[in-house]
Amino acid sequence: MNAEIIAVGSEMLTPDRVDTNSLFLTDQLNVLGVEVVAKHVIGDDRDRLADAVRRSLSASRFVLISGGLGPTEDDVTRDAVAMALNRRQIYNSEIGEGIEARFRRMNRAMPEINRRQAMVIEGAEVLSNDRGTAPGQWITVAEGQGSRVVMILPGPPHELKAMFTRECLPRLAPLVPPLVIRTRVYRISGMSESDLDQTISPIYKKYENPATTVLAHNGDLQVHLRARCSTEEDARALLDEVGGPIEAALGSLIYSFNSDPLEVIIGRKLAAANATLAVAESATGGGLAERITSVPGSSAYFLGGFVTYTRRMKTEFLGVSAALMEQHGAVSRETAEAMALGMRERAGATWAVSITGNAGPTTDGHDAPVGSVFIGIAGPDSISGLKNVETFHRIWPSSDRPRVRAFAAQMALDMLNRQLK
Amino acid sequence: MNAEIIAVGSEMLTPDRVDTNSLFLTDQLNVLGVEVVAKHVIGDDRDRLADAVRRSLSASRFVLISGGLGPTEDDVTRDAVAMALNRRQIYNSEIGEGIEARFRRMNRAMPEINRRQAMVIEGAEVLSNDRGTAPGQWITVAEGQGSRVVMILPGPPHELKAMFTRECLPRLAPLVPPLVIRTRVYRISGMSESDLDQTISPIYKKYENPATTVLAHNGDLQVHLRARCSTEEDARALLDEVGGPIEAALGSLIYSFNSDPLEVIIGRKLAAANATLAVAESATGGGLAERITSVPGSSAYFLGGFVTYTRRMKTEFLGVSAALMEQHGAVSRETAEAMALGMRERAGATWAVSITGNAGPTTDGHDAPVGSVFIGIAGPDSISGLKNVETFHRIWPSSDRPRVRAFAAQMALDMLNRQLK
Repeated sequence: MNAEIIAVGSEMLTPDRVDTNSLFLTDQLNVLGVEVVAKHVIGDDRDRLADAVRRSLSASRFVLISGGLGPTEDDVTRDAVAMALNRRQIYNSEIGEGIEARFRRMNRAMPEINRRQAMVIEGAEVLSNDRGTAPGQWITVAEGQGSRVVMILPGPPHELKAMFTRECLPRLAPLVPPLVIRTRVYRISGMSESDLDQTISPIYKKYENPATTVLAHNGDLQVHLRARCSTEEDARALLDEVGGPIEAALGSLIYSFNSDPLEVIIGRKLAAANATLAVAESATGGGLAERITSVPGSSAYFLGGFVTYTRRMKTEFLGVSAALMEQHGAVSRETAEAMALGMRERAGATWAVSITGNAGPTTDGHDAPVGSVFIGIAGPDSISGLKNVETFHRIWPSSDRPRVRAFAAQMALDMLNRQLK
Repeated sequence: MNAEIIAVGSEMLTPDRVDTNSLFLTDQLNVLGVEVVAKHVIGDDRDRLADAVRRSLSASRFVLISGGLGPTEDDVTRDAVAMALNRRQIYNSEIGEGIEARFRRMNRAMPEINRRQAMVIEGAEVLSNDRGTAPGQWITVAEGQGSRVVMILPGPPHELKAMFTRECLPRLAPLVPPLVIRTRVYRISGMSESDLDQTISPIYKKYENPATTVLAHNGDLQVHLRARCSTEEDARALLDEVGGPIEAALGSLIYSFNSDPLEVIIGRKLAAANATLAVAESATGGGLAERITSVPGSSAYFLGGFVTYTRRMKTEFLGVSAALMEQHGAVSRETAEAMALGMRERAGATWAVSITGNAGPTTDGHDAPVGSVFIGIAGPDSISGLKNVETFHRIWPSSDRPRVRAFAAQMALDMLNRQLK
């Protein structure tokens, strides 16, 4: 069974924006065994969009449209689909009242133009939106070759994902023949993408099923295996057949056997050990704490952190001696070590992580080359010989500030995770 | 003049891959004054691709196709375009010999299947490829409405970019009228997307040129005006004609008249005033400091910050009294005020910003509803009546943790920016 996805919005026809909703939708459809055979991006042009909808409907069982549901004149999706299907639109007072209520909760009157968002195509099922004002629509169309479905979904990714999961999946399931798709995800840290692929491609290359994908993002590597079978047992057996040798080849470089990121795994270990964590950052400027606190419930083990962007802050709040920084530099193994030890002591935490480095793009005012980063890990017991602190150093061959910062945070989490039981 | 871009390849219909060639091509075409009105991704399916080519040709002056030029059966682009145009393909012995020579240089014999790459559509101009084996093709098509051009380009980005720049740009230039494109970007904070659009759509709606786009992302709003004229003066005049009334209508809600984000504007103001900044965060967990330090050179004015994720940390490192939090809650106006004042004093900064809130997704252990955020701004002079500190409160109707955090950081920067001269 085939699907096509249409993303609506002139902003996605600029040099700076890509449509990412289709990646989520593709993943969801594939799991059901529905193949995406074409994707389109159409600007805010009613006639062109109506034409695209007609064409996709003539070729594919499911047509998913995202975006163009806002309240403004630019938002043409409702009109275009009505035109393509040759159906009227009707004002739905229940939706209208819902939108008004949403505005009331924010202590605001509903602008008149938001009434457009309550227009529903004749015969459509309304898909409720619990994260925004624009509802979606599910429209069944009887065509010559059998019935087709058009789904209209909102553009903001968090609205689209919630709506698709809650409203569309249950309606789709009975329409597609049962197919068992099982996925295994490995997350790997501490090696390069090409080394990873060279290690495991001799294993997975022999198999069309499961399909294997290698993804790399700022030092975080993922291997996805996706098996499609008629039974659960077959799918699991196939994943074991290919996954077993991959696990053997990568060993402890795999940090996650599902899609949990490092900050979730670390949080689970800390919570289980009744341990706490604090961080002291310089180069990453808060990005490490931000990742750790992105996990709901992280306040159970994360005490807090210091972003010490000056030498004075490092001395005053972490107790890093000025003489030590004078001698070795603020970006140095010695400073990273002192930052981690100082943070751990002052916060009274079980573990502390420090990052000091030069994120670039230039060396202005820095005593270290761009891309040079030191990580410190301080813990309760001896980590490195007799000391309860260990440091790591890496120079990334990049002057791309956001990338150096992201790599540094990833490395710090990886190093901490390796110390935790 | 309009163009459509078709990316060919089933690998770009998976959940993990996006087509990025179209971003480069869009940028190049826009500079020439050619607008991209639709983009498509089509799998390795000859008939479907032929159909897409026919349709794009019927609607747009230029059709750019990337990928599907390899030597294998999966590579259907040449056949599909020949089919769409109803033209034969002819073996080009010069190309064939070039491909053979390429293999010889790598000390390999040319596999027989690579002969397919030397097939050229009748009437096409060959676009040479100095970075790979597959040449491109430039095909002029006389249609009822005037002549059209189909460009066939290789999929690998480095091959495509080199070929487009060297072979296509010089052929395109004489076909498009000279055009000057000038863009103006306004960034706005402190209002909703629909309020913004209701305010300015009566102004911009009357104009097709400049084209106006409104973008919203986590509380940050942007208005893009793009004027296309035959002279620089006309373009500027047009931007003033539409931009002037927009600026008048929005007043101080516009914080940026180019694409600089709040953290850059704040940094510039602080540096100019020789002032410094420190931040104290709870709910955003480092995200505010992370944004501020994303700006290269931010160490000139940013001293650092504390992520105080527990009451004890707030008391110990910011001097927030335990009794005050006991009485009002850790998420309260009083705590935000004490955090900002404490941070300013302890860091010795000119300005300090604090954030305390409940980012959700649940109220577990919190004394405030999900989405409730307090911001404190402490500065050198009286801000609010007699005090040098001001607080702001907002409840976002969302339990989406990353969104509440992003909104809170954006609001904190907006509030700070309004205090700075």
